[in-house]
Amino acid sequence: MYQQLVHHPFMSKTAVQALSAQALVDAMVRVEVVLAEAEEARALLPEGTAQALEQALSHVDWDIEALAQGVVEGGNMAIPFVKQAKRALPEALREHIHRGATSQDLVDTALMLVLSPRLLRIDTLIRTALTDGDALMREHRSTPMAGRTLMQQALPVTFGVSVAHWLYGLGQAGAALSEIRRSGLFVQFGGAVGVHSGLEETGLELMDDMARRLGLSVPLLPWHTQRQPILALASALDRVAVAGEKIATDVALLTQTELGEVSEPVEDGVGGSSSMPHKRNPVACARIKRAARQIHGHAATLYQAGAQPLERGLGEWHAEWAPLLESVALLEGLMESVAHLMRGLEVHPVRMADNLSLTGGAVMAEPVTRLLGTCMESNEASRLARDAALEAQRTRRDYAEVLFEDARVHSALTRETLARATDPSLYLGSSLAQVDRTHDWLSPWLNQ
Amino acid sequence: MYQQLVHHPFMSKTAVQALSAQALVDAMVRVEVVLAEAEEARALLPEGTAQALEQALSHVDWDIEALAQGVVEGGNMAIPFVKQAKRALPEALREHIHRGATSQDLVDTALMLVLSPRLLRIDTLIRTALTDGDALMREHRSTPMAGRTLMQQALPVTFGVSVAHWLYGLGQAGAALSEIRRSGLFVQFGGAVGVHSGLEETGLELMDDMARRLGLSVPLLPWHTQRQPILALASALDRVAVAGEKIATDVALLTQTELGEVSEPVEDGVGGSSSMPHKRNPVACARIKRAARQIHGHAATLYQAGAQPLERGLGEWHAEWAPLLESVALLEGLMESVAHLMRGLEVHPVRMADNLSLTGGAVMAEPVTRLLGTCMESNEASRLARDAALEAQRTRRDYAEVLFEDARVHSALTRETLARATDPSLYLGSSLAQVDRTHDWLSPWLNQ
Amino acid sequence: MYQQLVHHPFMSKTAVQALSAQALVDAMVRVEVVLAEAEEARALLPEGTAQALEQALSHVDWDIEALAQGVVEGGNMAIPFVKQAKRALPEALREHIHRGATSQDLVDTALMLVLSPRLLRIDTLIRTALTDGDALMREHRSTPMAGRTLMQQALPVTFGVSVAHWLYGLGQAGAALSEIRRSGLFVQFGGAVGVHSGLEETGLELMDDMARRLGLSVPLLPWHTQRQPILALASALDRVAVAGEKIATDVALLTQTELGEVSEPVEDGVGGSSSMPHKRNPVACARIKRAARQIHGHAATLYQAGAQPLERGLGEWHAEWAPLLESVALLEGLMESVAHLMRGLEVHPVRMADNLSLTGGAVMAEPVTRLLGTCMESNEASRLARDAALEAQRTRRDYAEVLFEDARVHSALTRETLARATDPSLYLGSSLAQVDRTHDWLSPWLNQ
Amino acid sequence: MYQQLVHHPFMSKTAVQALSAQALVDAMVRVEVVLAEAEEARALLPEGTAQALEQALSHVDWDIEALAQGVVEGGNMAIPFVKQAKRALPEALREHIHRGATSQDLVDTALMLVLSPRLLRIDTLIRTALTDGDALMREHRSTPMAGRTLMQQALPVTFGVSVAHWLYGLGQAGAALSEIRRSGLFVQFGGAVGVHSGLEETGLELMDDMARRLGLSVPLLPWHTQRQPILALASALDRVAVAGEKIATDVALLTQTELGEVSEPVEDGVGGSSSMPHKRNPVACARIKRAARQIHGHAATLYQAGAQPLERGLGEWHAEWAPLLESVALLEGLMESVAHLMRGLEVHPVRMADNLSLTGGAVMAEPVTRLLGTCMESNEASRLARDAALEAQRTRRDYAEVLFEDARVHSALTRETLARATDPSLYLGSSLAQVDRTHDWLSPWLNQ
Repeated sequence: MYQQLVHHPFMSKTAVQALSAQALVDAMVRVEVVLAEAEEARALLPEGTAQALEQALSHVDWDIEALAQGVVEGGNMAIPFVKQAKRALPEALREHIHRGATSQDLVDTALMLVLSPRLLRIDTLIRTALTDGDALMREHRSTPMAGRTLMQQALPVTFGVSVAHWLYGLGQAGAALSEIRRSGLFVQFGGAVGVHSGLEETGLELMDDMARRLGLSVPLLPWHTQRQPILALASALDRVAVAGEKIATDVALLTQTELGEVSEPVEDGVGGSSSMPHKRNPVACARIKRAARQIHGHAATLYQAGAQPLERGLGEWHAEWAPLLESVALLEGLMESVAHLMRGLEVHPVRMADNLSLTGGAVMAEPVTRLLGTCMESNEASRLARDAALEAQRTRRDYAEVLFEDARVHSALTRETLARATDPSLYLGSSLAQVDRTHDWLSPWLNQ
Repeated sequence: MYQQLVHHPFMSKTAVQALSAQALVDAMVRVEVVLAEAEEARALLPEGTAQALEQALSHVDWDIEALAQGVVEGGNMAIPFVKQAKRALPEALREHIHRGATSQDLVDTALMLVLSPRLLRIDTLIRTALTDGDALMREHRSTPMAGRTLMQQALPVTFGVSVAHWLYGLGQAGAALSEIRRSGLFVQFGGAVGVHSGLEETGLELMDDMARRLGLSVPLLPWHTQRQPILALASALDRVAVAGEKIATDVALLTQTELGEVSEPVEDGVGGSSSMPHKRNPVACARIKRAARQIHGHAATLYQAGAQPLERGLGEWHAEWAPLLESVALLEGLMESVAHLMRGLEVHPVRMADNLSLTGGAVMAEPVTRLLGTCMESNEASRLARDAALEAQRTRRDYAEVLFEDARVHSALTRETLARATDPSLYLGSSLAQVDRTHDWLSPWLNQ
Repeated sequence: MYQQLVHHPFMSKTAVQALSAQALVDAMVRVEVVLAEAEEARALLPEGTAQALEQALSHVDWDIEALAQGVVEGGNMAIPFVKQAKRALPEALREHIHRGATSQDLVDTALMLVLSPRLLRIDTLIRTALTDGDALMREHRSTPMAGRTLMQQALPVTFGVSVAHWLYGLGQAGAALSEIRRSGLFVQFGGAVGVHSGLEETGLELMDDMARRLGLSVPLLPWHTQRQPILALASALDRVAVAGEKIATDVALLTQTELGEVSEPVEDGVGGSSSMPHKRNPVACARIKRAARQIHGHAATLYQAGAQPLERGLGEWHAEWAPLLESVALLEGLMESVAHLMRGLEVHPVRMADNLSLTGGAVMAEPVTRLLGTCMESNEASRLARDAALEAQRTRRDYAEVLFEDARVHSALTRETLARATDPSLYLGSSLAQVDRTHDWLSPWLNQ
Repeated sequence: MYQQLVHHPFMSKTAVQALSAQALVDAMVRVEVVLAEAEEARALLPEGTAQALEQALSHVDWDIEALAQGVVEGGNMAIPFVKQAKRALPEALREHIHRGATSQDLVDTALMLVLSPRLLRIDTLIRTALTDGDALMREHRSTPMAGRTLMQQALPVTFGVSVAHWLYGLGQAGAALSEIRRSGLFVQFGGAVGVHSGLEETGLELMDDMARRLGLSVPLLPWHTQRQPILALASALDRVAVAGEKIATDVALLTQTELGEVSEPVEDGVGGSSSMPHKRNPVACARIKRAARQIHGHAATLYQAGAQPLERGLGEWHAEWAPLLESVALLEGLMESVAHLMRGLEVHPVRMADNLSLTGGAVMAEPVTRLLGTCMESNEASRLARDAALEAQRTRRDYAEVLFEDARVHSALTRETLARATDPSLYLGSSLAQVDRTHDWLSPWLNQ
């Protein structure tokens, strides 16, 4: 389908392969077997049923086409799956599968099972990106660059502290997603209307037991139409997406021809332009930003479908599957690109320094004004700071030198004092301390 | 991929098949050939080039896997396509393909080419739905049912006028989409930075000529980062989605066990519940509502990406492809379901009548109050109208009869007058006129 | 402005009053004073400065109009605020205000300060709703009603367990929001480019100290363009909105004339229709659903603006204020309505029972089929269960009675067995256990 | 309220004033009077009623506070309005107001009435922006600047053609909005359930007549829950927002310190930074981008609420008012800023030229490669073009000069040929033709 050319390339290839139709079927098999195990343990099924089911279902050659057609008719993949499964089972086992379960139990739980390893992989990618980002941050702990607000050079920062801010964002979002992975992927089991009809109190026991057997979390109650777990997951995914998007936004801006402060890692065939040999396109940034935009859209769709009527959604539930699965596949791809940037980003300190001098020193006008305030009235200090910067920029002379020509300055300050006051690398505020603080904070995240 | 089980079943099968990776490649071939034709016509290429290109490219066995990998590296499908095409071409033709074009020219135009037949099919489905809906509307022109506001029975309408309102919505949205199909699918051709570098004024001529040859509309200028055409298309798609969603919302509510006023068409295997034989689930409604929700999400994503920087989007452009293609495939599926409902919806006039009598006549309290106002003070009339309705409902007697027991009524009004005033089928307002007006309005849309 | 009639009535009146322009100014004053305190404590300002500032600023008669005009010019409220403040201060204090701070420090921190009591109030409303909901749930622990999936009656549940599911959702969302309130409202302090230019390492100390003095959380770093805290807050707000929307969705469906299972609490003047005296509109539900829809929109806007460029957002930051403030004001209003529903919802067990009998017993077809399976072949059992339900519904007879007429049944089962098998109140699954489990889970939330 | 400081400054001040609560009340008065006129004309009301109503209502001192409280109770502003109106009317007139109308008739129509002049003003601002933009475009018809794709310099364009693309977008969106204003603002009149209960066929006549009297468009049918007109309006507003956002995105990028190709118009007090005197912030761009983001969010909310149930939305309708009114007020503000940019944008052709030479000529590598292809093998030509560009950039020498040192070039090409091939101002493609074409296309829009 078209997805192969316009959608999958922005996802993780690993995720695309893992999230196959077959994987969904396998997950549903696993849920049915575990349900049977739990029921067998409570003598609701004859001994040996679960094992027999597992064995019988492990040899089924599932007709995925027919399953897909069954979804068209029944509205979800559990209905045709159970049909095919029953047809494949020996007569005696047919009534023992899906016992007390409803489609939603099967689909929701199977989704959690296929999502879980994807979240683990995203977690790993985040750790890798943080580890490499930490090295990048520390390498450029004191590399001066222009801080830019509203697209204008404002005052100096270091490249290291810029990276620190990226990692702070990524770490926070990553922690939220990790938390969901560890305690927020719940089993679903409630039967037709969410009250374990025909199973009485044992229903809750079965639900709890299934969770433990599947390595999922135990919910308080079935959550057929109470979708807080989906919302929490959607938000965590989107927070990671934003953290990556922030990095891509900055990197793309810094790669601009006129700034040239960083370049994306060089890779064969990536980002080149056949007709314009001088271009190196920030393709990883484009990939990240595209994935992020789609994840935002998916999260919104999930929230809009969050309030589901009575005991089963009518379209709202069905609207969750594609956004959820696509979001993880896109996010895994996004994090691959972020990790790639953190590992191989080329940093150009010379261009950073050049850009800092573009304004003829005006980027230092704020501290200069304060210094001048020690030897003249405050308004005059502001005016002189600004005029000298314009003059320095026009004549391409040194800011300190121009300032020193002013008589009031000349008589009150030394050339060296002025040189220090106009040197961006001496006006880095807490940049270095922020890098150090971030490094400490990151330590539980870092790969050995 | 997972899409087969959780995404494609909610799309049109026809659309899923038509929107193949191969179809995208074929469309790109078509664009390259037509570009060559236009250039050849202006002697920018040797005579016979276009035909030679067409012939050579028609035999290529495209490596879709490799194209997909190329998208990962270059960011869009045009880059690897041109590479593969050149490799497949005889040396002499290699420099004649993609002459003066940029990736975005190829991708945007190819998308318009594959979307066009889908919009035509959606248009056809809309006409079919309107035609069948028109018959349904006229059949139930005067079938009384309860009008419901804020979920409460309010006053009578007819089922015909309910359908009229559905069709009015669908017709308006359909007209907007038709308009886009006829004059809003534009060719894209602008070269690397949108100004036909190296082609001078001829660039615009080529652009215009390509549009004519491809059956697309002629834009004023290349629209690489000025995406109004995409926005207009996104809105028209979403408007049709809402029109269908309105129908599904109403149908689903009317199928409720307690209302039972309509049922979805019976089809083998659709909407049944294996464990609950009495259920007939409104699966078509679920399909429609799910598709609509996803189309809303996609439209929002497209608008959020609408403002694209300078001469090429960085992620924004890339974020358009999946939402656009998925929206048409989902909308085509949605319209198949709407057409299915309009053709086969089962209507239950007896249940409609039963429901109208549920309130013991209170649904007629408004006109009754006005009638009573002719023989008593207005506050008293209101009170009597309400109390009698409660009494009628409690004792399951006729509203008119209960009212007639009141002395003031008895002395002022005849039994017949009261019977008429409490008969919902005589209080239909402009329902019938609205049906007729709608029928006339629909005539240009209707299939013969 | 128009907001008074079309927007504010859907917000909490308390919130609308609390979130005044003056309150924003007061919060900015508080931030400036606390900044001065922290700086004074580190001898960056002369002793007594903070107190002098506080005193001077507490008497200012702020010109809100002029502040608003200043926002037009400068883009945010801090710029004109500092200007007006300086004009109001004695000369000596002028250079001591806003020392080392940037507009974003002031605005972000002030927002957190005004949001904090709102979150506390929402928290309180959630606890109240949970407390009253708990009583409602327990009162109807075993009140049978129809469970409905895809709008169709499916199998019995109890009203209590429906409430349990509502409360489970609300409790989860409430816990998430509580968590943010307690540890996710951060101080902002970073200076012009987020690195405390001119303050060196002391900058971080000041930031941490300010947080403690203001009762806000300490961030790792300034978060000018790293907006994870805003995203976490937006999601938590939206999760509560969905939890309320779920309740309103169900209540509105259950109030339908044909279902009549619950009514909104009666209040003078609320929900009545002047022209249709029999109507009682679920106005609280409309209010909740409307607020929820707008909160969803705002959350999406916040995520779309989450990735902010370099050291200051250009429009992205500015786009946060209205959605954030409106979301809390709407959510507080939404929770007032939810609490109102939980306290006074009228429940109609008789209508619930009537509705359960509407299908002639077919709602019990699933357990009946299983029972019949003990005395005939499974397919025959299904058919008999269904046919008898249709017959019972048609003839308005008792389901058990109709079944008992079948010879196979007659010979194998007793009348009493059949009566038990067709009694919805004996087929409630884990409904009661779920209620009990929920009650235990809620205990830390409940008001005494 | 907080809106004064964080929301209104991003709206048009004119709009904020026009969209007062009083204006909404006045519009409702107008609707009631016109309804009475139409009914009087059909002898449904005594002669003179409409005039008497108009006179009586023109003197009412509306209690806006009480109206607001009434919205809390009834859910919309029509209910308390009619109550207050009746209380203010002489007894004889009380039953003649709101005859046959429902709240939604009043609210929907009143909204259309207050929106109409706002759309006209936006239209006027668009025309002004196009007129000034046209002048700007023509002034810089042939001013060379770098075309940038994926943030990298690619090939030359002119500033004029960049403006042409802006205007093409704005013109398209403006045409769509104009169309809505002229034929898409519909009267609403349908009575309680949309079928003119009690008015029979006359209901449609009244609806049509009211439209004519109010200067609104005539719908086919009442559109209480068929919201296509709202969706069409929402999309048109959002398209204009995107057109403005595109301009702001480009302008903001071009104002970057390192590019400096344009500056926002200088205005007293706007965009300055007190602590950093060298900064001139693109505040108008921030304002535009912020407004656009919120309009996107509102449009999404409106589409999500587009499908409304049965005969009256339950929350969906109520969710429309704020997004609609805010969108127009924000869009009017956005267009004021766009018009401001188009009128006063400062353009810096010298910086544009400087930037074009930043790559040492590499921006011309594509045509140079083609020229070199005439005297050497194609791969060699590519390599030489690139290497020479790097050399020119490194040594800050002229690209042509470096190329000319190559023996193969030296022997085949003249210095002048090379100079022409490396001159960006001679490689502008269809830039000039596009400007001319746009100027022609704009002519119907331009102010005299």
